[in-house]
Amino acid sequence: MGEYVYNKVTPELVEKFKRIAPGRVYIDGDINEDFSHDEMPIYGKAFPELVVEAISTEEVAAIMKLCNENLIPVTPRGAGTGLAGGAVSIHGGVIISTTKMNKIIGYDLENFVVHAQAGVLLNDLAEDAAKKGLLYPPDPGEKFATLGGNVSTNAGGMRAVKYGATRDYVRAMTVVLPTGEIIKLGATVSKTSSGYSLLNLIIGAEGTLGIVTEMTLKLITQPKEVISLIIPYADLDECISTVPKFISNHLHPQALEFMEKDIVISSEAYLGKSVFPRVVDGQEVGAYLLVTFDGDSEDELNEIIEKASEVVLEAGAIDVLVADTPALKRDAWAARSSFLEAIEADTKLLDECDVVVPTNQIAPYLKYVNSLEDEIGVTVKSFGHAGDGNLHIYTCSNELDEEEFKKRVAVFMDKVYEKATECGGLISGEHGIGHGKMDYLAKSVGAVNMRLMENIKKVFDPNMILNPGKVCYKL
Amino acid sequence: MGEYVYNKVTPELVEKFKRIAPGRVYIDGDINEDFSHDEMPIYGKAFPELVVEAISTEEVAAIMKLCNENLIPVTPRGAGTGLAGGAVSIHGGVIISTTKMNKIIGYDLENFVVHAQAGVLLNDLAEDAAKKGLLYPPDPGEKFATLGGNVSTNAGGMRAVKYGATRDYVRAMTVVLPTGEIIKLGATVSKTSSGYSLLNLIIGAEGTLGIVTEMTLKLITQPKEVISLIIPYADLDECISTVPKFISNHLHPQALEFMEKDIVISSEAYLGKSVFPRVVDGQEVGAYLLVTFDGDSEDELNEIIEKASEVVLEAGAIDVLVADTPALKRDAWAARSSFLEAIEADTKLLDECDVVVPTNQIAPYLKYVNSLEDEIGVTVKSFGHAGDGNLHIYTCSNELDEEEFKKRVAVFMDKVYEKATECGGLISGEHGIGHGKMDYLAKSVGAVNMRLMENIKKVFDPNMILNPGKVCYKL
Repeated sequence: MGEYVYNKVTPELVEKFKRIAPGRVYIDGDINEDFSHDEMPIYGKAFPELVVEAISTEEVAAIMKLCNENLIPVTPRGAGTGLAGGAVSIHGGVIISTTKMNKIIGYDLENFVVHAQAGVLLNDLAEDAAKKGLLYPPDPGEKFATLGGNVSTNAGGMRAVKYGATRDYVRAMTVVLPTGEIIKLGATVSKTSSGYSLLNLIIGAEGTLGIVTEMTLKLITQPKEVISLIIPYADLDECISTVPKFISNHLHPQALEFMEKDIVISSEAYLGKSVFPRVVDGQEVGAYLLVTFDGDSEDELNEIIEKASEVVLEAGAIDVLVADTPALKRDAWAARSSFLEAIEADTKLLDECDVVVPTNQIAPYLKYVNSLEDEIGVTVKSFGHAGDGNLHIYTCSNELDEEEFKKRVAVFMDKVYEKATECGGLISGEHGIGHGKMDYLAKSVGAVNMRLMENIKKVFDPNMILNPGKVCYKL
Repeated sequence: MGEYVYNKVTPELVEKFKRIAPGRVYIDGDINEDFSHDEMPIYGKAFPELVVEAISTEEVAAIMKLCNENLIPVTPRGAGTGLAGGAVSIHGGVIISTTKMNKIIGYDLENFVVHAQAGVLLNDLAEDAAKKGLLYPPDPGEKFATLGGNVSTNAGGMRAVKYGATRDYVRAMTVVLPTGEIIKLGATVSKTSSGYSLLNLIIGAEGTLGIVTEMTLKLITQPKEVISLIIPYADLDECISTVPKFISNHLHPQALEFMEKDIVISSEAYLGKSVFPRVVDGQEVGAYLLVTFDGDSEDELNEIIEKASEVVLEAGAIDVLVADTPALKRDAWAARSSFLEAIEADTKLLDECDVVVPTNQIAPYLKYVNSLEDEIGVTVKSFGHAGDGNLHIYTCSNELDEEEFKKRVAVFMDKVYEKATECGGLISGEHGIGHGKMDYLAKSVGAVNMRLMENIKKVFDPNMILNPGKVCYKL
């Protein structure tokens, strides 16, 4: 454990936690098994010694202070939907669950922001804002993540190509530091040059620098019209090479996803519903783009569809299918949203990689990745956000034992991360580094960047008690 | 000077600098007077001991290393157009000028980015990108600032209301650390969750954490049509209260500026050209909105103008004047762009404040500010970015001596900064903290935030030699 020493949660401390959060402290057998892992258990399973469900910033601060004074490690946790082990208490200690901090505090309709507690679910904010004619643009695949988790990983999602990632929608935050001090960052303003951007430093820090307890998030007016297109291609290369043409032709899709045939087949089998045609105009389909456009009138959208059709047909698309009924649109996106679940459903062992590469590197990058399938002997399934170069690549096996799988995957991951860096990309587009990808991050950004991150970590957390062993600092 | 000790630039060191940058090292009488101040000399005038014009990242790194080893303070400087004393060498030492690092390295048209050296002028990039049909959206009033300076202050400007500030366009950077180490941050991708965002920490750090030497900046396609409206109101209150109505009516102006009558009069006198009518429909005008919309077709813009006219007339505008000739549009924006020059031209003593407040707070905030004019006895002139709440408030005097002026301004500034914080705003929207606003920042964000900033500064700059005495750390 290096220079840092942790203590165990004693019965005396349990009593103190119970006084801070009466009725919301769990130990031993009362801790739900869910708290021992996230959605990618391959990055570590570990039970905390104690779980406390906080309901306010002040409670989080009191718990944090107690833990800091007693050198108890703390892992902040939202809905536990992470994919990199970030919310797993690998060094034991206390988990602070934010799921009971689930109040939408209020809307400021003149400044187009909403104030919310960190434990509000993305889906709940989306539905509530829609009732007011407002849209919270970030749209990660996992709708039942907490907003605090989204902020902590700078979650991206489907609409990032047009609207940007979570970072672009955080105006202000309340944060509890590892010392138990409470700070406020940012303001309800869209520009600032008022000292170092601690706000942007905490966004994406995966709960290692402070615990986000409240947020002020930017909203936009809900677009009046939305339409989706399914665009089949003979192969992935042609499919991907269309991507930059949207932008250069002044077409700004809200979402722009690519998918290879195989993953569509397994997702449709999982849902028991067929949406994407396998053969179009006598040609076998190898890959699809699923594109959504938004706008303020039907006329505007019709013009966009006409122009987009021209562009993609010239770029080699077999056809353009307009998902013009709500049912068809819903089914198409349901198929896309179920890719991970579909993979999980028929896979025993699973690992994933979430690199982001420049959009013109997607096609050569995926060609390389697919070439490793036979070489290394694991099944590879991939899909992703064509518009922003964020790729989700899954390695799966039903035959191998876990040890052999992990060995092969290690070889695979070393190669795909190295290649991503070579292509000018980064280790993670939206899932984060957590516990699972620290070595890859270090290789990608180099020793000096890692030293800076580690020392920044120490500035915030002198006792190294907040989410230790994640992102940039191994114990 | 507290715990940090600096050395003087010796003749031996001068020779070493000359070997690193032959023909580009200046000392004593060869240092241009311009290097002793920025555009707001009230925040300090000081000559450096040596100026070196660097031409590459490697040169900056070699100079930085030499200074770090010899404990010589270094002030990085672009075009010197700052307004907060950030580029003034208040502790002597070396100024590294980036103005000769003025190459646009190249465009990547598939990924919509440009690679440029830090000394490229904003105006040069704008003109060059326009030739390729591309737009670099950030548009600060000062077109002859360097891009490195823009990044270091997170410059905002006119188009921030629609397109965001400089931060939103920085994809990657090369940075020289105070140690002389060179790091690369970010990538040509639009989303990332790959460790702490050192990129976002350096943006807006005003050259105190590292020297930005190269940048990869996002571009967008140039909108095909642009049109401006001049909207006169009887008074400022009505004028400002229109602002949130644009957004709620799905109108997204590229620029949305407010101006009081007095400043328009002095700017037009300065330019010798009358553009803004003083009386419209028999009503005296008290304030104006100057609004620009962009779009991809004339039809689209006509629709927008029609809808915008309805909205503003209903909200109390006297009329809507369409700047429908290129000359009229140019003249209107020239008047807006000349506000600062016009103020400077007929003012002996000048100080400014660049707060940002929530847009619905602009009107009450300005009412408060104007109420101080008589109370404190300084002339106040203000204008600003109505769309994003960033206000430029100038205190002027031609009668007072400098000491008395500074005394009164100190009282004024204390009050206006305190009020801005009270209104939920921040100290600076786009000019930065530099040397001039450190006390106001500290009061606004509090001791804990300042401690974090100071300690982050020490992580990057253990000898405290890079731009000392700026932003968060006084010596």
